[in-house]
Amino acid sequence: MYFEKSEYLSRIKKTQQSMSEKGIDLLLVTDPANMCYLSGHDAWSFYVHQGVIVTLTDEMPIFVGRYMDAFTGVVKTTYLDEAHVRAYSDTMVHNPNHHPMERFAEVITELGCANKVIGVEMDNYWFTAAAYESLKKNLPNATFKDANLLVNWIRIIKSDQEIAYQKRAGKLAELSIQAAADAIAPGVRQCDVVAAIYAAQIKGTDEFGGDYPSIVPMLPAGETAGAPHLTWNDEPYPNDIVIAIEIAGCYRRYHSPMARTVVVGRPNPKVEDVAKIAVEGLEAALDVVKPGIYLEEMEMAFRKTLAKYGLEKEARIGYPTGLNYPPDWGEHTASIRAGDKTILQPNMSFHCIPGMYFEDFGVSISEAFYVTETGHETFAHYPRKLIYR
Amino acid sequence: MYFEKSEYLSRIKKTQQSMSEKGIDLLLVTDPANMCYLSGHDAWSFYVHQGVIVTLTDEMPIFVGRYMDAFTGVVKTTYLDEAHVRAYSDTMVHNPNHHPMERFAEVITELGCANKVIGVEMDNYWFTAAAYESLKKNLPNATFKDANLLVNWIRIIKSDQEIAYQKRAGKLAELSIQAAADAIAPGVRQCDVVAAIYAAQIKGTDEFGGDYPSIVPMLPAGETAGAPHLTWNDEPYPNDIVIAIEIAGCYRRYHSPMARTVVVGRPNPKVEDVAKIAVEGLEAALDVVKPGIYLEEMEMAFRKTLAKYGLEKEARIGYPTGLNYPPDWGEHTASIRAGDKTILQPNMSFHCIPGMYFEDFGVSISEAFYVTETGHETFAHYPRKLIYR
Repeated sequence: MYFEKSEYLSRIKKTQQSMSEKGIDLLLVTDPANMCYLSGHDAWSFYVHQGVIVTLTDEMPIFVGRYMDAFTGVVKTTYLDEAHVRAYSDTMVHNPNHHPMERFAEVITELGCANKVIGVEMDNYWFTAAAYESLKKNLPNATFKDANLLVNWIRIIKSDQEIAYQKRAGKLAELSIQAAADAIAPGVRQCDVVAAIYAAQIKGTDEFGGDYPSIVPMLPAGETAGAPHLTWNDEPYPNDIVIAIEIAGCYRRYHSPMARTVVVGRPNPKVEDVAKIAVEGLEAALDVVKPGIYLEEMEMAFRKTLAKYGLEKEARIGYPTGLNYPPDWGEHTASIRAGDKTILQPNMSFHCIPGMYFEDFGVSISEAFYVTETGHETFAHYPRKLIYR
Repeated sequence: MYFEKSEYLSRIKKTQQSMSEKGIDLLLVTDPANMCYLSGHDAWSFYVHQGVIVTLTDEMPIFVGRYMDAFTGVVKTTYLDEAHVRAYSDTMVHNPNHHPMERFAEVITELGCANKVIGVEMDNYWFTAAAYESLKKNLPNATFKDANLLVNWIRIIKSDQEIAYQKRAGKLAELSIQAAADAIAPGVRQCDVVAAIYAAQIKGTDEFGGDYPSIVPMLPAGETAGAPHLTWNDEPYPNDIVIAIEIAGCYRRYHSPMARTVVVGRPNPKVEDVAKIAVEGLEAALDVVKPGIYLEEMEMAFRKTLAKYGLEKEARIGYPTGLNYPPDWGEHTASIRAGDKTILQPNMSFHCIPGMYFEDFGVSISEAFYVTETGHETFAHYPRKLIYR
């Protein structure tokens, strides 16, 4: 177990508090990060339907999933006992005639909540339109309420143990960026650089190993630098190119993302100017961080720096991060952008990534950090500047 | 581009044919594998809402997504031109007040289909309950029809080029299993073995590099062997243990999964007997493969072999595989299990994985293969037996 049982129970209490405020009697959690946060279940089982149910009366949640994940996995690896686990038959997996949510409806009925207010994570990847339709059909007397991000908003403030895990992830991020920097050279294939990054992310240190980050390494460069979600291929790097690397270290599902930019040869001379501005903007944003400010003040400080140089950037410059599963290590709650009135509190964790993308190159230099009593501390410690190769 | 434009256009034609048969005027595809299959778009952009729209009248589809993915990515890397791309503003990303499907409704209206029959992939991970609700609200005169797996059923028969990519993936699978076998030893940490697997998967050969498989390496062992979706940690392996490894090679998003089992020291003596039965059952299943048989006949042959030894297995023993994205490399259409009446045809690809899991160990030895004119051929070539370390 990654945390004491008492920490899980306090998370359930906070969830129940939020449910009460929103008039929700039973919460069905299908986000794997939220499921792990509340139950401790950590597995690649989210490719089939599964969920964690929180009621207002039980201090523990109920896991519902496939038999092999539920009784063999959850019971052996989490604080939940058999009484808090329900399974559906393997014949319901990818079966066009039955939806696993039929089993969820049975469990909700068994819990006496068939006619109650049920919270569901409406816009979560793992709560499909079909799952919702099946639940509505099989619980015709229930009232459904959107509880999207309810648990995510609790996750935005980390415990000290969670911060400690993110610091380990920060160390893994440093090692991974260094592995990339060491591997990149003209003529080296993109896939060979990514292989070096993966090895560093997972191997970790002698003291602790790494977990899989929720996003694969991304290395936008050259004429598609402005499309940062394209992934690598097996082409060798040319003599002159700028490579904006974004990776994360991940320890026990806790992330510390990091971006750094590698310059090979003598590409566009504008790169150095952009990098200086980007770092100045990043540091201006970090400098304002302390408990009590609005999150948008970070973006304002960044924007003010850019304006000095006649530049601007449309997209947001960051988001909360921590416990997560593919396809994203962001938490989907606050955003570091104009208008975000989230008030900073100690132990909130963010990734501030003011990437600057142009026609033929991109510069990305970022920091993951948490809010301290008086300011901020980064999870990783790695020079904030271009890496020359 | 991974395929000729003509191959993409023939996929669209088959999709339109299936739409016509089902009375669908416009198909909204949100599965990233189906999107890539039809448009060629290959990026880690599925963590935000995106889709590909197929109509009955246009020989090309329309990509709808975030600006940086649409105009900077799709236009530069696929056969689609700017006329077949639409973007939504970055302010709609993770914005509680606006759903990106509002933009999709605009595009569908622009295409003259606001009052037509619209097919949606109801049980796809990337078509959330909220996405469906938003579409229904913004297209009140449309009729929605479940088109789940419509494109997946077309994907089940591969082109020769797709088979060639899966053969390359098979080579990567061999290398990755070998890397695991070489790394495993008493006292070696699980994370170090996984780092070696990742490096082999991505580095590939001198001739070609590897892509990220849709599932992380899984190595169930010891007392949680029966929970195959648990992932690794940083504990060292003990002196005596059985490790059932399941990985895939992936080339240009095409997969060839593979499972092999490594025996360290002298664990449970039943392991050898189980492995012999598992291989005999696997080979019995493969032996019946040829065009024209029902898929369930593979499972019948496997079940008959197990019955000889007084054993049985509840779960299905395989599924189609090919092009895919996290969280699954299976295609969710047919299953190798009793009752599946899918008729085998040349160039169908499957992963047959009759894993046998017990209280304290699991044995998994599998093959990915495609159906030939007269039988089958495996994508990888690696001994079908226990690996001793």
